Amino acid sequence: MAIVLGPNRYGKAETRVVRVVREGGTHHIKDINVGSALSGDMEAVHLTGDNGNVLPTDTQKNTAYAFAKKYGVDQIEDFALLLARHYVDSQPSIHHARVEIEEYFWDRIPVKEGPNLGLRDQQHSFVRSGREVRTCVVHHDQDEGTTVVSGLKDLVVLNSTGSEFHGYVQDEYTTLKPTTDRILATEVSAQWRHRGDDSAFDSSYADSYAEARQALLDAFAETHSLSLQQTLYQMGRRVLDTRKEVCEVRLTMPNKHHFLVDLEPFGMDNDNEVFFAADRPYGLIEGSVLTDDAPDAGSAWN
Amino acid sequence: MAIVLGPNRYGKAETRVVRVVREGGTHHIKDINVGSALSGDMEAVHLTGDNGNVLPTDTQKNTAYAFAKKYGVDQIEDFALLLARHYVDSQPSIHHARVEIEEYFWDRIPVKEGPNLGLRDQQHSFVRSGREVRTCVVHHDQDEGTTVVSGLKDLVVLNSTGSEFHGYVQDEYTTLKPTTDRILATEVSAQWRHRGDDSAFDSSYADSYAEARQALLDAFAETHSLSLQQTLYQMGRRVLDTRKEVCEVRLTMPNKHHFLVDLEPFGMDNDNEVFFAADRPYGLIEGSVLTDDAPDAGSAWN
Amino acid sequence: MAIVLGPNRYGKAETRVVRVVREGGTHHIKDINVGSALSGDMEAVHLTGDNGNVLPTDTQKNTAYAFAKKYGVDQIEDFALLLARHYVDSQPSIHHARVEIEEYFWDRIPVKEGPNLGLRDQQHSFVRSGREVRTCVVHHDQDEGTTVVSGLKDLVVLNSTGSEFHGYVQDEYTTLKPTTDRILATEVSAQWRHRGDDSAFDSSYADSYAEARQALLDAFAETHSLSLQQTLYQMGRRVLDTRKEVCEVRLTMPNKHHFLVDLEPFGMDNDNEVFFAADRPYGLIEGSVLTDDAPDAGSAWN
Amino acid sequence: MAIVLGPNRYGKAETRVVRVVREGGTHHIKDINVGSALSGDMEAVHLTGDNGNVLPTDTQKNTAYAFAKKYGVDQIEDFALLLARHYVDSQPSIHHARVEIEEYFWDRIPVKEGPNLGLRDQQHSFVRSGREVRTCVVHHDQDEGTTVVSGLKDLVVLNSTGSEFHGYVQDEYTTLKPTTDRILATEVSAQWRHRGDDSAFDSSYADSYAEARQALLDAFAETHSLSLQQTLYQMGRRVLDTRKEVCEVRLTMPNKHHFLVDLEPFGMDNDNEVFFAADRPYGLIEGSVLTDDAPDAGSAWN
Repeated sequence: MAIVLGPNRYGKAETRVVRVVREGGTHHIKDINVGSALSGDMEAVHLTGDNGNVLPTDTQKNTAYAFAKKYGVDQIEDFALLLARHYVDSQPSIHHARVEIEEYFWDRIPVKEGPNLGLRDQQHSFVRSGREVRTCVVHHDQDEGTTVVSGLKDLVVLNSTGSEFHGYVQDEYTTLKPTTDRILATEVSAQWRHRGDDSAFDSSYADSYAEARQALLDAFAETHSLSLQQTLYQMGRRVLDTRKEVCEVRLTMPNKHHFLVDLEPFGMDNDNEVFFAADRPYGLIEGSVLTDDAPDAGSAWN
Repeated sequence: MAIVLGPNRYGKAETRVVRVVREGGTHHIKDINVGSALSGDMEAVHLTGDNGNVLPTDTQKNTAYAFAKKYGVDQIEDFALLLARHYVDSQPSIHHARVEIEEYFWDRIPVKEGPNLGLRDQQHSFVRSGREVRTCVVHHDQDEGTTVVSGLKDLVVLNSTGSEFHGYVQDEYTTLKPTTDRILATEVSAQWRHRGDDSAFDSSYADSYAEARQALLDAFAETHSLSLQQTLYQMGRRVLDTRKEVCEVRLTMPNKHHFLVDLEPFGMDNDNEVFFAADRPYGLIEGSVLTDDAPDAGSAWN
Repeated sequence: MAIVLGPNRYGKAETRVVRVVREGGTHHIKDINVGSALSGDMEAVHLTGDNGNVLPTDTQKNTAYAFAKKYGVDQIEDFALLLARHYVDSQPSIHHARVEIEEYFWDRIPVKEGPNLGLRDQQHSFVRSGREVRTCVVHHDQDEGTTVVSGLKDLVVLNSTGSEFHGYVQDEYTTLKPTTDRILATEVSAQWRHRGDDSAFDSSYADSYAEARQALLDAFAETHSLSLQQTLYQMGRRVLDTRKEVCEVRLTMPNKHHFLVDLEPFGMDNDNEVFFAADRPYGLIEGSVLTDDAPDAGSAWN
Repeated sequence: MAIVLGPNRYGKAETRVVRVVREGGTHHIKDINVGSALSGDMEAVHLTGDNGNVLPTDTQKNTAYAFAKKYGVDQIEDFALLLARHYVDSQPSIHHARVEIEEYFWDRIPVKEGPNLGLRDQQHSFVRSGREVRTCVVHHDQDEGTTVVSGLKDLVVLNSTGSEFHGYVQDEYTTLKPTTDRILATEVSAQWRHRGDDSAFDSSYADSYAEARQALLDAFAETHSLSLQQTLYQMGRRVLDTRKEVCEVRLTMPNKHHFLVDLEPFGMDNDNEVFFAADRPYGLIEGSVLTDDAPDAGSAWN
């Protein structure tokens, strides 16, 4: 019996890059968090500490900043692809790169005209929108090519009716009462895998994101739900119906329980009016929806 | 030398209440987090464990839910006042109540017409807006009366230019270089104290919030800043100029440093284009702005 | 092109169970966080909302509590196995169960004899130790059998010398200076896969945990490190050398950078005396070490 | 009605300093988080942005590092005093300094002898102990002198019996059942104010901390509790009884509810064996205990 090195990767996580572009007095900002992880000929560094094949994580941080200057940052998928290919193409010892990026959204603060206004033509003030985070994970492998997964997280949605739950299995530990009207709330994490990264799709990451997001919201709102699983499936399906460049959707949806408060002891009824928003424990529903012609995922989900 | 009991209070923190109001198929939701803290004749419970003067924290939780049903939840200040007065008025042993409430905002998910639509007339789907949290702290004292402080937190704002910093004290530990153009970013926590709680103002908490918030954003965007202190002062001042029922504003503003990345080693200049968003340490600026006729604050800020 | 349901699972996450056992005046507590996730015949619930095959997540919560009473909680792996087998064995529609458990440690507060002591013989006071969290993930599949992965997280370790980093790849974006003496600090997340769950090993989860943990600490302390990868490999190897029932170790080790502060501007040298502990970005090293006769992992790492 | 500047302060928060001292092969580490906040002649900077009286927060960060080198870091109170006095004494525009420090504890990893051991004489390996955080807040004012408050936070304690709760006020919203045996658990934040900072006490901050902490634990464990307020009072009292240099103790103790799970539906009793550890809402008990000859607190608690 011998001891061997298994799968491994290393990189720099959470490099926070803010990129400003100035068009006269109008500024644009892009606020991202970049993580890169590299794999390749890494036996020596693990077994003997020989760093001869190791591009330092500090260099990966520098590269994220330098590329932000050199190429700008538009769609995060494109920026991730640039970085991933750079590492594999420029370093003989690196055979595989994984780059993940989060994007945080900002809205403009509209500046009104008026006597108090110091800077009349400025458009350089922003407020963090606070809505969901956009995400992507890109893999580039010298042999297996490239995969692109886009996504979002922290999208919290709630239906105050239109949700039922009954007809489930009852065993000796079941005490839950069936309901035909409950609050359904969840914090959506969704990721959708693109069929390929060729130029036919490259140009559409912005549209893809906007429409996939809208599809998720629409399906959540429009599904009369008999179970959170049903809602999840409809949401995944809607993305696939909407965006042909997407072949698989994975969703993680915690059931953020809103329990009806028992007001009977106080002589009050509670016709779905007052709820306790609970933290833990919570239901957790995870599932994927895909097209039957989806190409092999390779390392896309790693 | 004797040992004595000093100031004390007790209560229930973070009671999460979601209140739904149904107008036909159109639902309204209010999502709040309630904390109550009571003071009064509490010698016995501390010294001997005699709970004869103690209204349990569990009862305070129940009261928040029951009041949400009984009175509904509109402006959080009004709901806090209801609760605070209730405790002091109904319990002989309770002389002072402090109620704080946070409110989280939701936007509607607009439902489009279409063949996939199950529920055409519904308006019961929401997405957490993710923007700042609205806050209030209300004190009601049987002798000293009532104070109302409104506020917000987690309002993250950024100016990508229009901020300078120079002319500061230099001592032997100073290495910072002066700048005439930097990013200024902060996460605003603001609280504004109302002059009184009489009915002339009661009706305006909604307006008060909306306009105070806008005043903060406007002043942040419109101030050409020579220091974060100057921006803070302008923001407080703008609220006072805008809302006459407010007599004092307190602001806590961490300086969320965005450091210019040195790209020279890579043969690139960096004309305020690429920044590193730092976490710690951070500057922390705290200050208050008030009118010279502001009434005594009493326990408003406790 | 058709749309199909892919891999999925559902369950209750973060059921917080505290189990007290009384031996006369001496109490024992076990503080755990249980998550279960079930898979099986779940087409119907996703496609039509038919819950006929769904054991509610609320029932899973109840089961965790009822089993804590019925069987007690000793080693978390054993408790997870009990739950996982129960779901698959008792529900025809459930073919696979994944149970993960975290355990939090408490130390006794020793009670001293003395005139102030009210309860002389008590041993029922505890202080949260705050050290690392013990973890396990158990899978039980009706066809593929059982896998057990034990582990820990939040184990923060630091060597104040005995770490070097040099000889790495230099490209156009490399600015890092080589060093022969640096602080090496990391927050270890480790998981180790057991060869089987047969009774030969069942009895040793307590020993296995204690010795694997010690092996990780010893290898971290005793390795003169030329790279964090080398340290990671030595740590995994040491566990395998120490515990024969373990066939694979996976480690995630963020490099918690401690940067030497430049004190030269103040006329001071800094011979590895004063460091800035940075948050982000951070290096992230992930790797696995296994024996060459390790059985197939199946779903163990899912 | 004019608008005026109210109380204000500014500084650098969360400067993370790790100080290493080498005694041959034996290293000592001190891991602290420093925040400083200065006040004084700050009208100009707020009103006009004139920074002529402002010592930059960046300089405050540098000073923390330089002082760590120059003076070392032993007791955090002493280090805070050094910094606070430095700012007031060296800057004519600074009249008041507040310095707060948190300290994180590390244990040594004992290195065993053996054939695998690379560094036999080393004592430079540490594991974060994970127990409570030690804290202090020091104020130094050019007119009012100095105050020192020491403390701790994140000290989580639990009694699995010896706690009752009954005899409380019952109103129309009370549903809680009295109990004569419950779990009492809390996360202690405690701060104790020293009578003065003269040299008689300076030398004892280490003892003071160790004994105050022990007093808190002892009193928690040894108090048969009829209410959490009673326990809080006994804990404060015990510190005052133990340490004569302390004149006031302030405690914040959330009631980390452990609810007895109802197992009756499953045909089981639950004689205080299985509990649900709840997150929110929680009781929150705050109180102070002081000696009747305590000097005026001044700004000690700000």
